[in-house]
Amino acid sequence: MIDTSPSSMLEESVVIVGVGLIGGSIAAALKSKRFARKVVGVGRDAARLSAAKSRGLIDEAATDISAVIERSSLVVICTPVDLVVSNARAIKSICEERWPKSSEHELPLITDAASVKATICESLKQLPRFVGSHPIAGSHHQGFEFADAHLFENRTCIVTPIAGANQDSVNRIDRFWQSIGMQTIRMTPEDHDVGLAMTSHLPHLVAAALSATLTDANRRLIGTGFRDTTRISAGDPNLWSGIFLENAASVSRGIDEVQKQLESFKAALDRRDENEIRRLLRISQAIRKSLD
Amino acid sequence: MIDTSPSSMLEESVVIVGVGLIGGSIAAALKSKRFARKVVGVGRDAARLSAAKSRGLIDEAATDISAVIERSSLVVICTPVDLVVSNARAIKSICEERWPKSSEHELPLITDAASVKATICESLKQLPRFVGSHPIAGSHHQGFEFADAHLFENRTCIVTPIAGANQDSVNRIDRFWQSIGMQTIRMTPEDHDVGLAMTSHLPHLVAAALSATLTDANRRLIGTGFRDTTRISAGDPNLWSGIFLENAASVSRGIDEVQKQLESFKAALDRRDENEIRRLLRISQAIRKSLD
Repeated sequence: MIDTSPSSMLEESVVIVGVGLIGGSIAAALKSKRFARKVVGVGRDAARLSAAKSRGLIDEAATDISAVIERSSLVVICTPVDLVVSNARAIKSICEERWPKSSEHELPLITDAASVKATICESLKQLPRFVGSHPIAGSHHQGFEFADAHLFENRTCIVTPIAGANQDSVNRIDRFWQSIGMQTIRMTPEDHDVGLAMTSHLPHLVAAALSATLTDANRRLIGTGFRDTTRISAGDPNLWSGIFLENAASVSRGIDEVQKQLESFKAALDRRDENEIRRLLRISQAIRKSLD
Repeated sequence: MIDTSPSSMLEESVVIVGVGLIGGSIAAALKSKRFARKVVGVGRDAARLSAAKSRGLIDEAATDISAVIERSSLVVICTPVDLVVSNARAIKSICEERWPKSSEHELPLITDAASVKATICESLKQLPRFVGSHPIAGSHHQGFEFADAHLFENRTCIVTPIAGANQDSVNRIDRFWQSIGMQTIRMTPEDHDVGLAMTSHLPHLVAAALSATLTDANRRLIGTGFRDTTRISAGDPNLWSGIFLENAASVSRGIDEVQKQLESFKAALDRRDENEIRRLLRISQAIRKSLD
């Protein structure tokens, strides 16, 4: 039975590594929901951390995680995808050194917020205190200045335990995301990546491809349609190139899929086949309308 | 010199053929700006016209345009693209019959709101009282129930006079769109279609192609990125198939363009070329950010 009494719902100390849009929003949500007694921000830039603290997003700031980690901590790594593994491993080393005789379940529990899961979870499978997560929420903005305590409300978080994961740990991670308003579902890291390639990574790439077709001469001719369809391509290229590389095979297959759809439209258009164009548009309309 | 005195800014009677989202929004804007003394709605469905009248969008309703057309009227055809030409020709016949001896400039002036201009303007080139327009505004909603008096504010309207068009007529059409808050620019019908293929028609098709890749299993994995990028594919398939067919060659070339961009991404991804992926994403990001 899962203990859902108020005290079990509360984390003593949540350490957020990487206080950007996502990390900052988690901090803001934790503060507003009072789910953690203390929210600690860790990052490389002391000035920015200090600004995040001034803004009330975090209670404490540190550029060195070893200065703030406690045995009871829950650590949420919110760095770009390619820095999750090294951060998790650094935490493991610190803990092994500091609490060499502790049993596994006394050590800090670690999760992340990266959009790709298979390589991370595979790389960290020797680290039983790590449980991968992907809160499906975000924006094309960057930085804690855009932090929003409501960013996660009624959104889905995918929790991706590996086979044999400790169920108490996984439940604690579930509760954590639920505490900031999310619904959690569980998937294997591999299934997560195959699915997200289509629902998140491919849309970003398609938006970027479309943005790239805009010429200077045509700029004055755009409307809300172009703006909506390309909005996410304003996202951080460094962040997204990391995501694409970590999920390259699935994203590549996604490109094939959307190319196939574009081919169908083009073939119908080139032979001026009104019924077929309409049929294809109806399928897409039905799918899109069903999402509202 | 253009006469911009208040009286010259006012239309006696504006007749709107097709009181849907666009026609209804024009009506709402005209009423709120008091630019027309009378706004008349024409359509095929008496019950819906009557509802639009009850809602205060139009002052008068008619299923037969001959019942409401006056010599001073400005007629705005807001039907789907494939019905613009037949409606304009019907108005011409009515006028020739009713006012056989009138000089051209005494007859109603006609414009439209269709998203494709070349075939319409070519088909109507014997109708000197027609000046093509395309107000770049809209939504994926349908019906006057979604009419919005502010839909056109600070948006661009492209006015597409053919060579030798009467300048007073073109100026009057400019003023009409400006009266509901739009900035007008002028283009040839052909240039309009080449440009809009890329900025409006292609995005719709790309959004539709992306929507079509969504499987049932992946539905729970979508976030705001997928929603934004596919939003416009919820638009009316009949309306959009008409648009695509009228601008088929340019849209087909547009598909080629976006496919080329997707190929570049895929090639970089397949060889795990991080620098190239990042370079491509940076170009797209810069373009998209410049639109905000």
